[in-house]
Amino acid sequence: MNAIYFDDYAVGQSHTTPGRTITEADVVFHAGQIGDLYPHHLDEEWSKDGPFGTRIAHGTLVFSIASGLIAREINAVSFSYGYDRLRFVRPVHIGDTITVVVEVTEKRLDPKRDDHGFVHEKGTVVNQRGETVLVFTHIASVEISSGLG
Amino acid sequence: MNAIYFDDYAVGQSHTTPGRTITEADVVFHAGQIGDLYPHHLDEEWSKDGPFGTRIAHGTLVFSIASGLIAREINAVSFSYGYDRLRFVRPVHIGDTITVVVEVTEKRLDPKRDDHGFVHEKGTVVNQRGETVLVFTHIASVEISSGLG
Amino acid sequence: MNAIYFDDYAVGQSHTTPGRTITEADVVFHAGQIGDLYPHHLDEEWSKDGPFGTRIAHGTLVFSIASGLIAREINAVSFSYGYDRLRFVRPVHIGDTITVVVEVTEKRLDPKRDDHGFVHEKGTVVNQRGETVLVFTHIASVEISSGLG
Amino acid sequence: MNAIYFDDYAVGQSHTTPGRTITEADVVFHAGQIGDLYPHHLDEEWSKDGPFGTRIAHGTLVFSIASGLIAREINAVSFSYGYDRLRFVRPVHIGDTITVVVEVTEKRLDPKRDDHGFVHEKGTVVNQRGETVLVFTHIASVEISSGLG
Amino acid sequence: MNAIYFDDYAVGQSHTTPGRTITEADVVFHAGQIGDLYPHHLDEEWSKDGPFGTRIAHGTLVFSIASGLIAREINAVSFSYGYDRLRFVRPVHIGDTITVVVEVTEKRLDPKRDDHGFVHEKGTVVNQRGETVLVFTHIASVEISSGLG
Amino acid sequence: MNAIYFDDYAVGQSHTTPGRTITEADVVFHAGQIGDLYPHHLDEEWSKDGPFGTRIAHGTLVFSIASGLIAREINAVSFSYGYDRLRFVRPVHIGDTITVVVEVTEKRLDPKRDDHGFVHEKGTVVNQRGETVLVFTHIASVEISSGLG
Repeated sequence: MNAIYFDDYAVGQSHTTPGRTITEADVVFHAGQIGDLYPHHLDEEWSKDGPFGTRIAHGTLVFSIASGLIAREINAVSFSYGYDRLRFVRPVHIGDTITVVVEVTEKRLDPKRDDHGFVHEKGTVVNQRGETVLVFTHIASVEISSGLG
Repeated sequence: MNAIYFDDYAVGQSHTTPGRTITEADVVFHAGQIGDLYPHHLDEEWSKDGPFGTRIAHGTLVFSIASGLIAREINAVSFSYGYDRLRFVRPVHIGDTITVVVEVTEKRLDPKRDDHGFVHEKGTVVNQRGETVLVFTHIASVEISSGLG
Repeated sequence: MNAIYFDDYAVGQSHTTPGRTITEADVVFHAGQIGDLYPHHLDEEWSKDGPFGTRIAHGTLVFSIASGLIAREINAVSFSYGYDRLRFVRPVHIGDTITVVVEVTEKRLDPKRDDHGFVHEKGTVVNQRGETVLVFTHIASVEISSGLG
Repeated sequence: MNAIYFDDYAVGQSHTTPGRTITEADVVFHAGQIGDLYPHHLDEEWSKDGPFGTRIAHGTLVFSIASGLIAREINAVSFSYGYDRLRFVRPVHIGDTITVVVEVTEKRLDPKRDDHGFVHEKGTVVNQRGETVLVFTHIASVEISSGLG
Repeated sequence: MNAIYFDDYAVGQSHTTPGRTITEADVVFHAGQIGDLYPHHLDEEWSKDGPFGTRIAHGTLVFSIASGLIAREINAVSFSYGYDRLRFVRPVHIGDTITVVVEVTEKRLDPKRDDHGFVHEKGTVVNQRGETVLVFTHIASVEISSGLG
Repeated sequence: MNAIYFDDYAVGQSHTTPGRTITEADVVFHAGQIGDLYPHHLDEEWSKDGPFGTRIAHGTLVFSIASGLIAREINAVSFSYGYDRLRFVRPVHIGDTITVVVEVTEKRLDPKRDDHGFVHEKGTVVNQRGETVLVFTHIASVEISSGLG
């Protein structure tokens, strides 16, 4: 596992994750796992006549998969503190492919812990047409480098 | 499906959802679905020596299941706008049971849409020992009642 | 959880459940879970040349999902005693959407338990073309109301 | 695939299927797949204080798995017509192992189809302590042998 | 369970298994279960521009399902010793249907165990167009018949 | 994605993957997915009296997960050609944790493709007690570096 310290992050840094196609199996399983059985997730006939014309993925599914796409780069000295301003911008349909653009937007020391700082990363989830479907700000609590040098 | 309009919500209202036990199957499946394969979710031997002494559930899993517990009460005139101040307070372990206390904390008109308002619901996710493990504020966009009366 | 007592049921009452689209993921998973691996469920090439022209869902899958659609309305004073006359009328294909029409067809006291009665509900499972695919009679054992009034 | 014709069945024949342990993963997945999210299936804390002292498997899960245990012996000239007198006798808990005793109890010609007959098989599902947990009568529609001999 | 002894196998014997359609749900679940999240399995947009024009199934998924197709014929006196010369010949796509041609290619006594011999079975996995997609040699350790006769 | 060329591999190089605990959910799902329903995977009561005293994981499950553990380090210029000498050494039980020791054991040019070579990696899968449970040799076909320098 890699270690990326607080000092290694710079505001303005950004990268794009690999993509992930949201499948029908994902939607059906997530619906069951969380117990959100709304017809716009599970009933194609009902959804045909609705505003989107077909079933949509759960917001929590899109968010969870986006979070996982970011987490593929393990950082052993960081842990997830929370998220701010999670906003569902557009629906995601079965068969859409999402990627996440991640940008460091803020760094600040943790007033309660000398050896940790907060790194804010804005996540912008886009579909295969380049449309933004979800945004959020991830707050990571990261160790400050040892300063041994 | 029920219809609960903006005017039907009152700040201070609260209720508690049913409970849900977080199982090993949930953690294993969620890890695979989102691709977050950190050893503290999937490697019991590694986790034994870590800070928690055993595997922990993904924050996104706890959040998704909490969101689903709330969603069991379908409201046909409300949709999920987003979430604010999602904070991971304590780890959730395999076998823990969570419930969500939901409280309306704020109501405000939507400046962009005459016929909709925002309802803020604070979700406090607690485990079987009454400890808070996760908090968040859900923002729902809700239709304003027709005022036919 | 709601409580609907024996006296609250009336022969002739009926309602229709939400719909549920039967997906390929449902069929594949159910096949594995129950170990029914017949080619008309899992082999599309074989099924093309069969009587239905494509794969069909397991009868137990359709029945289980129909049972779950009914169970979304939890009744805390009722439990499932059994089923009579379960009949597979037409095949259900991947992509079909089912709903259940539920009608109370019979009520009778339980000769062995003073405080319980049996409520018979006929379930008629229909697809998106209005064709009946499955019928059954559900027998619920329901508490008789306390008569406090 | 084997072919066992109507004439090959004899009233009184019986056999016992292999066993299957009902796991927590089975219960969690089945709950989500059918949308039956009752706390006695998914909430261990709630179930501790209930009549059974722990979570129970869904009746439809036990029935489906029992049906699958029987179906492992494929009969190419038989199809499932329906079930009668399905009765839930005892709860099945996570970790219980079920087997099915299958006995041919009745044979009768199909008045509507010259070349088919009905074979009734009584299924008795027992747990690892030999207790009956579920009974049902399976009705198979079976081809009558060609009489070439 | 059947018992097929070492002496019952003859070099040159062959049979063909039932078929199995590889579904999107299979690929998505296998990806998560084993943690192989390469974009040619999970990202349809990326795969469109790749050498195969669409997503492909994992080699381990095709191999596992092929192994399972063979295993449907339980032999109580045989266990799996290993595999030789597993070769991925062609990609398998979502929706392809595979069958396995199994041929006994070699028999030899086990120098370390008097009462066991090795049976080599060549598995040739073919798709619905008759193209070979995977080959392997399965080595089974099989009991030598009791010689009671 | 990284690119590790043929010339970057050296015989004798080795590394150890992260660990993965094999859960009951993994075994149940893999059994269903591949259709290998042997009682030593799915019937705890039967397994108690068998040689291992409890259920065992499928060899294909252990192999697939081991393969996935190795695949977490994506190499964009390598693809999997096949496997040799896969041998099941010891059973893996539910709850065991496996890791894979990977060592480059051979390199050779591909006689049919000028720009590719074969890299042989021996995989030794060990459990939490350090016992070897599975071995195999992975054969990768890797691009030869461009030699631009």
